[in-house]
Order: sequence, then C-alpha cells, then structure tokens
Amino acid sequence: MKVKIGEKVLSENDRIAFSNRNIFKENGVYVANIISSPGAGKTSILEKILQRMSGRYSAYVLIGDVQTENDANRIKKLGFEAKQIITGGGCHLNAGMISKRLAQLDLDKIDIVFIENVGNLVCPSAYDLGEDDKIVVLSVPEGEDKPIKYPAIFNKAKLMLLNKIDLLPYLQFSKEKAIEYAYAVNSGMEVIEMSCVTGEGFDKFQKWIEQRIKGKRR
Amino acid sequence: MKVKIGEKVLSENDRIAFSNRNIFKENGVYVANIISSPGAGKTSILEKILQRMSGRYSAYVLIGDVQTENDANRIKKLGFEAKQIITGGGCHLNAGMISKRLAQLDLDKIDIVFIENVGNLVCPSAYDLGEDDKIVVLSVPEGEDKPIKYPAIFNKAKLMLLNKIDLLPYLQFSKEKAIEYAYAVNSGMEVIEMSCVTGEGFDKFQKWIEQRIKGKRR
Repeated sequence: MKVKIGEKVLSENDRIAFSNRNIFKENGVYVANIISSPGAGKTSILEKILQRMSGRYSAYVLIGDVQTENDANRIKKLGFEAKQIITGGGCHLNAGMISKRLAQLDLDKIDIVFIENVGNLVCPSAYDLGEDDKIVVLSVPEGEDKPIKYPAIFNKAKLMLLNKIDLLPYLQFSKEKAIEYAYAVNSGMEVIEMSCVTGEGFDKFQKWIEQRIKGKRR
Repeated sequence: MKVKIGEKVLSENDRIAFSNRNIFKENGVYVANIISSPGAGKTSILEKILQRMSGRYSAYVLIGDVQTENDANRIKKLGFEAKQIITGGGCHLNAGMISKRLAQLDLDKIDIVFIENVGNLVCPSAYDLGEDDKIVVLSVPEGEDKPIKYPAIFNKAKLMLLNKIDLLPYLQFSKEKAIEYAYAVNSGMEVIEMSCVTGEGFDKFQKWIEQRIKGKRR
C-alpha cells in the first residue's frame, strides 16, 4: 500500500479548517486571513483599520511569525486584543494552530478575527485555516510581477490590497500592470490601492470589511 | 519502528548538496545562493553585478521561481547565461534541482554560479544546495525587524546586502537597527549597503565576490 503523505497532511488540515469554519459560522464571526511577503505592511494595515473600526466592531487578531512577539505587541499597545503564534521554523499557519486558540476566545463577543499569516507568498496559500476570505497584500516596492510569479495566493485571494502607493513617485512600478497581472490569475479579484502613510484606501477597505462582517452575522 | 520523515528528507537533500559541493570544488567554481523576500531586488542586483564582472569572470545563473521564466529572461537579455528552474508550487530550491542542471554545464569554463532562490525568507534557509555562501538581501521597505523575525536565514548568511537604500529618505527605517538586529542573530555577518538605482555598494560587492572567486580557484 502506498501512503501519499502530502495528501494525508493536507486533508488533516482541511478537516480542522472545516471545523474552525463551522465554529466561526455558528458564532457569526467573520474571519480574514491576511497573506503577503515579509514587510509588505500587514501589521501597519491592521493597526490603522482596527483604530477605525474601534467601538463599532469587536475584533481579535491572531498573528503568525517565525520568531518574536513584536507584531502582537504592536496591536496590544493600541488597546486591541491580539495573540502571537510563534511557528518556530514554520513557514505558514495551519488550521490546528487556529483551532488551539479558538478555545480561549469568547467568540460570542467577537465580530471579526483578523489572522495575520507568516510573511511568505508561497506556503500560506496552501493551508486553509477556516477563514471566510484570504486577503493578499502586495506592496509596490516588491514590483508588479508578483501576481504571476506567485499565482496561487493571488488566485485564491478575494481582495488584493495594493499597499505603499505613497512610494510610487520614487519607484519604477506600473500600477496598471500589477492589476492586469492580478486579474490574469484571478479575474474576480477586488483591488484597493492604499497607503498607511497617507491613509488612502482605508475608507474603501473599511467599507469592504464591514460589509463582509454584516454578511456573516447570524 | 518510527520513521522521522523530516530528517530523512533533509538528509537526502544534504547528501546531494554534499555531492554538488564536491563537483563545484573539483572544478574551482564559486557558488553563491542568494535568498530574500519576494521583490527585494535579487535579479536587479544580479543584472548589475554581472555587467560589472563581464569579461573578467565567467558566470552562470540558476534562478528559482514558483512560476514564470521572467527572471532568467532578464539575465539572458543582457547576454549572460541563465537557466530558470520553475518549482511549480515549491517554496524553495533543493539540492536535487541544482544537481540536475550541473550535468548540462561546462563547469571548467565557469568561475561563478549565482543561484537566485525562490523569493521566501523562511523555507530556502533550510535547504543546503552545495553553495559556498548564502547571501541574504534585505530591502529597506521591508522594515528593520526582519533579521529577528526570520532569524534562520540571517544566521546562516555570510553576507547581507541591505538593498534599496536610495529609498531611505522616504521611509521610516533605521539602518542602524537593521544592522544591529542582523548582528544579534549572526555576529560574524558582513553587511554591504547598496542601491541598484544609484549604484552605491556595487564596488564593495564586486570586490567581495571576486575575492571569494579567487579563494575558490584551483
């Protein structure tokens, strides 16, 4: 008998992700899994969007990193609830890591769980965590070709946040090409151009997220 | 009997890496394995350093990407020899992928093989390819905390290229802190600040590489 190890591990992850998804659904909690290269601005985006949604929606943040609790501490410093998941050498979060933290949460009081994945455009795309949507962040210094070089995550994402657009004047980056490449791997993708420096795009992103939360409510 | 799968896979990779290293040594070829986040500037750095070394040293470039032949085509367009290794979904190069291409090379005529790994700060650090040195590229838009958040690759790298320093005026980035963090995980690391826009740092990098080539010659 041949055992297909890759398949077995994935289906075990899928089984837990399925259970996570059911738990989130039962509690009317919307979950976004945010994925990007290292340093594309995931935590900065979270800092800003959490402050905007504060008082209107109750949020919880789970943050994956290979090492350090820096990012969870940044979120906590602003007064929001966050938990760091240190993967050790692990290159992505998996459904079991999320499941383990679910037991500690009072989901009845939470509207949205933001999951900030490990900074990596490859591996996190293969692991369902039980989220409603994957959101991919592409920062303009990375270059416009990333959607076609890392198609899996851009194909699976519901939304692309094109971040750091305040840097456009200083870079050779074609916004049009980046969006064209994103559509080439995912014609249904939504795109929001944004900047944590100027605040551009955060109105749109907030509306997008709040609509997703409302759609999930029981 | 318990089979430790992770160990077995790694030691198979190590066995091939050992063989690659011997072949490079026998032929007096210096090999650099260049690792970074997506879009940190690996290919742009290669384009520039290859042009500077042209006529004095014979180089060959192996480029790993999840998808597209774009990067190898960029190198070939400049008149240099390059081969794209498309990993499919794979998040890193492994020693077997290098070994497979070695048979096609006339190593006797090559001074240096540049291996550009898949854009990923996590997985490539765990796979020895048989290289002499790992070189990590950190671009300033990624933020100064990357060495402590992704310590494995910064610990294993001989040299850190701190790239895109022309963008420093437009970013909140402490060069001192980035270097301090790099030394914290690797006190013996060498650092060169560079920019593909201004050309800063390329004199130093060229000297560094040429010295490594000379040290490897039979």
